Amino acid sequence: MHAADVLQSVIDRSGSVACVGLDPRPALLPPAVVDVALAAHGDTAAAVAAAFTAFNRGVIDAVAGRCAAVKPQTACYEAYGVAGWLALADTVAYARARGIPVIIDAKRGDIGSTAEHYQQAFLGAAPGLGGASLPGMGGDWLTVNGYLGGDGVKPFLGAARTGVFVLVKTSNPSSGDLQDLVQGDGTVMDAMARLVAGWGAARRGDCGLSDVGAVVGATYPDQAKRLRALMPDTIFLVPGYGAQGGTAADALAGARADGRGVIVNSSRGIIAAWQATKTSDWQGAARQALNAMNADLAAVRK
Amino acid sequence: MHAADVLQSVIDRSGSVACVGLDPRPALLPPAVVDVALAAHGDTAAAVAAAFTAFNRGVIDAVAGRCAAVKPQTACYEAYGVAGWLALADTVAYARARGIPVIIDAKRGDIGSTAEHYQQAFLGAAPGLGGASLPGMGGDWLTVNGYLGGDGVKPFLGAARTGVFVLVKTSNPSSGDLQDLVQGDGTVMDAMARLVAGWGAARRGDCGLSDVGAVVGATYPDQAKRLRALMPDTIFLVPGYGAQGGTAADALAGARADGRGVIVNSSRGIIAAWQATKTSDWQGAARQALNAMNADLAAVRK
Repeated sequence: MHAADVLQSVIDRSGSVACVGLDPRPALLPPAVVDVALAAHGDTAAAVAAAFTAFNRGVIDAVAGRCAAVKPQTACYEAYGVAGWLALADTVAYARARGIPVIIDAKRGDIGSTAEHYQQAFLGAAPGLGGASLPGMGGDWLTVNGYLGGDGVKPFLGAARTGVFVLVKTSNPSSGDLQDLVQGDGTVMDAMARLVAGWGAARRGDCGLSDVGAVVGATYPDQAKRLRALMPDTIFLVPGYGAQGGTAADALAGARADGRGVIVNSSRGIIAAWQATKTSDWQGAARQALNAMNADLAAVRK
Repeated sequence: MHAADVLQSVIDRSGSVACVGLDPRPALLPPAVVDVALAAHGDTAAAVAAAFTAFNRGVIDAVAGRCAAVKPQTACYEAYGVAGWLALADTVAYARARGIPVIIDAKRGDIGSTAEHYQQAFLGAAPGLGGASLPGMGGDWLTVNGYLGGDGVKPFLGAARTGVFVLVKTSNPSSGDLQDLVQGDGTVMDAMARLVAGWGAARRGDCGLSDVGAVVGATYPDQAKRLRALMPDTIFLVPGYGAQGGTAADALAGARADGRGVIVNSSRGIIAAWQATKTSDWQGAARQALNAMNADLAAVRK
């Protein structure tokens, strides 16, 4: 079964195109979670990891059945070394056990022989010294940087049940430094979009969408509409909704005529909703924020 | 002290511009190393990590004082999860204790707030729950993907003693999919080169070279010459020598008129030299291969 079909089935079942970004940082953690971790581990990386793990499990419990996917940002975990890596692996496994597709936001990209190892790490399995198959993190999707071209992307497309989202137009202010430069009769991001459409052409699922998706920021809705024309069968993973300034209409600007082909990420807006609403019920706050986001998106999707 | 000055001082002292790529894979490990690890740990990720650690320490001992830097490729380690991460951290610490600059080849690139966490992970320190400063891996340099523009690169330039190498022209066959496309009066890689020169302008050390370097593959020497004109004060990290087909002249094509500004990586050619020469003395084989590479490069540098 294609990764795109699994994702579409979860969207159909939940009625949600929201992706919950699991980007924990110490400053976003509820005091109750922090206190338990500090008491158990002192002011160490193990404490941060224990807090991330408990917090993410609580958020996943709160959002399960109401979202299309979760997306842990690897950087938040790598900052805490081995302890952080364990927390990331726990989060991926916990979400998958709840039936939620997991997009590992690692933005990897390298030459072909190296990309194979990243595929092993996040989506597949690596060989042991004696020939064992050693499972990696077990993610469903990986974000990928396509600057190195096709042979850095193809190793991620080996197994039917996994997919990638390739960076096309990112949500950050300086994304135009390279992506907006004029190239041919379009821009550099257009050239990347054409590559993405080409890489994904042979990887369409029954739903008509491809396992090769694209990251297209909500903060640039006009570009999203143009990019849709270049990538008709591509799922857009849209960051930049909410905290970064994108509205629901902005975030859905790149949707297909049939309304499909977009999932919208929110990280801080959901996981740190307890701070905005000044409550100690951080799970309830996350659930309510997700419900509000789903309603906000549904109003535009109608 | 600038990272560029530290690197140049090691080049001056060793007389070498070689970078030893520490990209271990099970198939490249000597039987003696494999047997010890399998006996101690079984056919597990812990065995692979133990073998990587022992092997890398042996290679570092063999090449110390004869090279400009070492460059572990993170993907090789991440494929083995937490155990692999521990082996990577051990390798970085062991090389630094021997006074060898360490380039962590992670090719990270993300929006600014996320890039900060990668900086913490590889070059800096991350905040604990109680305000502690938790040191990361302690690398000297990090390879970075600049597709997201300036605000994904600047967080890596906070501390004077560390630097980055930004991907400009990579060594792989499909690097031209995006990098070679015509842009303005040049190509996409030229546009990236201008960005790199701009980011590095305020980060020049006493040696005249910048802490913002560039990855420029040995497999494209004509492009390297043109890129040098666009990045006069940039250190080129040159992959693609040897196993990937680049000659010494190719690898040094981008050197400045004063001979400076290039370090040349070899991974398999050094760490797997024991296979090519069919010897069990893998440390001696690595040392001899590095000596031969240094001589090969020196003949062109004269």
